[in-house]
Amino acid sequence: MPGTREWVTTDLAIADSTIAGWGPREARETVDLSGAALTPGFVDAHMHLESTKLWVDEFVGAVLPHGTTAVAADPHEIANVFGVPGVVALAQAASKLPFTFGICAPSCVPASHFESPGAELGSLELAELLDEHDAIGIAEFMDFPGVTSGNPEVLAKIATAGHKRVDGHAPGLSGRQLDAYLAAGVESDHECTELEEAEEKRRKGMWIFIREGSASRNLAALIGTVLLHGTDRVALCTDDREPETLLHSGHANDCVRLAVAAGARVEDALVMVKSNPAESHHFDHLGWLAPAYQADVLCFDNLSSFEPARVFQAGKLVAINGAIMPGAVPTAGPPQWMRSSVHLETLPGPSAFDLVPPLGGRAHVIGIESRSLTTRDLVLDVTDPASEVARIAVVERHRRTGRIGLGYAHGFGLTHGAIASTVAHDAHNCMAVGAIDSSGPPDMAVAVARLAEIGGGQVAVRDGHVLAEVRLPIGGLMSDRSIKEVSEEMRVLADAALNGLGVTIDAPFMQLSFLGLSVLPELRITDKGLVDVMKFALTDVAAT
Amino acid sequence: MPGTREWVTTDLAIADSTIAGWGPREARETVDLSGAALTPGFVDAHMHLESTKLWVDEFVGAVLPHGTTAVAADPHEIANVFGVPGVVALAQAASKLPFTFGICAPSCVPASHFESPGAELGSLELAELLDEHDAIGIAEFMDFPGVTSGNPEVLAKIATAGHKRVDGHAPGLSGRQLDAYLAAGVESDHECTELEEAEEKRRKGMWIFIREGSASRNLAALIGTVLLHGTDRVALCTDDREPETLLHSGHANDCVRLAVAAGARVEDALVMVKSNPAESHHFDHLGWLAPAYQADVLCFDNLSSFEPARVFQAGKLVAINGAIMPGAVPTAGPPQWMRSSVHLETLPGPSAFDLVPPLGGRAHVIGIESRSLTTRDLVLDVTDPASEVARIAVVERHRRTGRIGLGYAHGFGLTHGAIASTVAHDAHNCMAVGAIDSSGPPDMAVAVARLAEIGGGQVAVRDGHVLAEVRLPIGGLMSDRSIKEVSEEMRVLADAALNGLGVTIDAPFMQLSFLGLSVLPELRITDKGLVDVMKFALTDVAAT
Repeated sequence: MPGTREWVTTDLAIADSTIAGWGPREARETVDLSGAALTPGFVDAHMHLESTKLWVDEFVGAVLPHGTTAVAADPHEIANVFGVPGVVALAQAASKLPFTFGICAPSCVPASHFESPGAELGSLELAELLDEHDAIGIAEFMDFPGVTSGNPEVLAKIATAGHKRVDGHAPGLSGRQLDAYLAAGVESDHECTELEEAEEKRRKGMWIFIREGSASRNLAALIGTVLLHGTDRVALCTDDREPETLLHSGHANDCVRLAVAAGARVEDALVMVKSNPAESHHFDHLGWLAPAYQADVLCFDNLSSFEPARVFQAGKLVAINGAIMPGAVPTAGPPQWMRSSVHLETLPGPSAFDLVPPLGGRAHVIGIESRSLTTRDLVLDVTDPASEVARIAVVERHRRTGRIGLGYAHGFGLTHGAIASTVAHDAHNCMAVGAIDSSGPPDMAVAVARLAEIGGGQVAVRDGHVLAEVRLPIGGLMSDRSIKEVSEEMRVLADAALNGLGVTIDAPFMQLSFLGLSVLPELRITDKGLVDVMKFALTDVAAT
Repeated sequence: MPGTREWVTTDLAIADSTIAGWGPREARETVDLSGAALTPGFVDAHMHLESTKLWVDEFVGAVLPHGTTAVAADPHEIANVFGVPGVVALAQAASKLPFTFGICAPSCVPASHFESPGAELGSLELAELLDEHDAIGIAEFMDFPGVTSGNPEVLAKIATAGHKRVDGHAPGLSGRQLDAYLAAGVESDHECTELEEAEEKRRKGMWIFIREGSASRNLAALIGTVLLHGTDRVALCTDDREPETLLHSGHANDCVRLAVAAGARVEDALVMVKSNPAESHHFDHLGWLAPAYQADVLCFDNLSSFEPARVFQAGKLVAINGAIMPGAVPTAGPPQWMRSSVHLETLPGPSAFDLVPPLGGRAHVIGIESRSLTTRDLVLDVTDPASEVARIAVVERHRRTGRIGLGYAHGFGLTHGAIASTVAHDAHNCMAVGAIDSSGPPDMAVAVARLAEIGGGQVAVRDGHVLAEVRLPIGGLMSDRSIKEVSEEMRVLADAALNGLGVTIDAPFMQLSFLGLSVLPELRITDKGLVDVMKFALTDVAAT
């Protein structure tokens, strides 16, 4: 499909990795694709590799068959754990793969000064990634208060971008605050949830990346802006997709399918995963089936499933009918040091998790709900079993400080044992939730000890025994196994939490992983203690 | 008008030179524009300053009132005369003006090895302009045979562009030749004359700049591609507009008016002179009335004439109702050395122009026709008065070589005296046409002597006297006078040629200025002699 959004019947001539032209040519090799609809490879406008829990070679092997040949990735979880060397290691591994893995320089590491990541990235580190390691731009600028208030350090980070893209993250921002955010130089947003929000942002020149992740799904709410005003400065993105979603729904092609189902013209939906995201991220060689462009070509037998029958990347056939060609995706593992990221001076014992309730029992409790990442600042009597609270802890795991933050959470339903995770945005310290009764602290200690032993991951423990676990030895964030194994481990772990520990909430590990993110409302916890996000201050557990 | 192509009612907040946001603000100054339609300043996607015969300050003063606030200019005439220093001098003058004068690095100086310009530009010179003097890209790549044949020097020039735009010039190029031209890295074209030609180029990802110049007017033929397929990668440009056209028809706003008259939606027509050309040339700060963009704002009382009632450039009011605000456009003259460009060791006398007819009289004659820049290779008996030929000469004027090329032309109608011009694409040597009778050579000598005396320009001479002239002392290409004076001088000169010398063809000086361009079919003349463009070789005047 060409730039005029027609379908044209033609031969396509490819020379090495590049499209040489249209029409018949004398060729060393010809492939008969008669009847197939050809499109450029799909480009995911914004995603986090870490959310897939896969290392980059496994990720590429998982999404190429779905037609994704390029992404703009924000490796800010890796950056929180390993800093610039982690991002560079990812870039080096990705460079060996048949894929355009564009890396954005993470803008907000740490997310706030309440968090204790393994590394911090200032404007010097961003400049290093942009100038020396070919970062394609600056990743989602989550610290929008810092931008709109004109914080000099924040503005210095934006200035490092030069002519490269500065991606934004501005949920609900509008009016003067949005104007200030844009005037500072931020250019895109993938956090719109309401049509009017997307409309205002587009009117003001912002690129809108419509997100269809595993949890956050905004396409149905936002497609109206495309139906009303066309596709200018709109692209589709996956943001956070888990292995199971990749396996069962696909990747960028799933976004296209949903856009068409929601009423978009096929051609317009395709523009939002080809030329538009390519243009947005200055992938000047991608997004068109035209001379001089890289020969990333998808061949569809039909356009209803949007599952390509063949995928060519840089002129080479890499996937047929959903399966990678043997040898097409080489192994490109992480360096050994990325497998060592859980650093504890001593393993904390049960007593380290045994928070003494405040006098009278009334405490600030993190209130969570299914299908929402917003927590509420509840005040409950934590000594009253009817309050149904659990213990929560954050064990600093990067710098051997021994610091542990303790508090209470409500909503997990967990009544026995403990769960724990080294995936814990954004600092990715070791978070644990344990039963409020006396079984909690020892099982929390066992869970944390197990994560230290396996180099990170997610685990469910009861009565001192590990019920199930997902091993994530790469930075405590990513597996070194196949997507199928990771997906199955995650399913078994979720079952164990639900059936073995009394957990009632959906996606307990996903919920757990966000309870440390000290910039989301209302109440969070880090290794430094309870954070009242609305006051942007540490706060006591005891309610006054 | 915002990116969604709606019209929105709002206040616009401007801080210094930048749009700060939408909606009411506490302001130092407010301007009541109620009822006005606001658009971004217009961007001309491709033009040659030299065609306007105005120096840049006068040009800016002429087009700002029409709403043009930015251009992508190809100064390749100046480059042929002065090389890199001439282009840099233009850039320095332009930098003092309230205007975005984007300069492209001229790609094809000289046009061919048959021409003798004042300077040559290789890839080193292009790199110097791009890297040290902020050239925005590479200007129209006219040497398409050099590109498609893979000439290493030509490809080296393209490679200097890096991520900047490489503009093209590919009249009629299609199929495999077009594919090769694109594959080499050329990205735009402003030479389409047929709808199908534009359609093919757009399908293949090329930016199409639809041209409405003084002579070449392609909008009516090409607007169909916009009506059929929208505005993706389409922009409008003026290419070559003469002073009279600027005065009476306008500039980019005239292109918008014509596009709307031809059936384009107002909003689509506007996109082609604002965000599209800005995007094409990476004017990242132009083309939108959105926060962070430069406050180039046009206020229209109505959208039928597309003559703005007010023009703001970088936040400052620069024009009202077609008139520049006093002091808004400072004088920014050229350096003194640009006024010295006609270099002759000695003035050629009449005998230097007296070509002895070939034995038998039959000669190759340059055949010209009104309203066409293509010449024909005629064979006529130049000793027969019925052949109605004139003498033609090219006097090298850059390097004091004393070289003069002599030949014959048919079609001017000139029966007495002589005309001469230092505007003579692309090398801009001194061209003269004189009567075939014995009055021709002395009047040609007087005409050339007069141009040497005034530092270049265009002149009509009869019986040893100057009838009329346009003084173009800046490089022999541009005036130092006002647009009204230049336009009036040109009118008087054309009258003198028509009424005093018997000229019958339209626009004789424009025709004359292209007879030395050795890459246009079929027969041309340079200081080295007659050029058979179809054989791409020098050829004898005598017909065999």
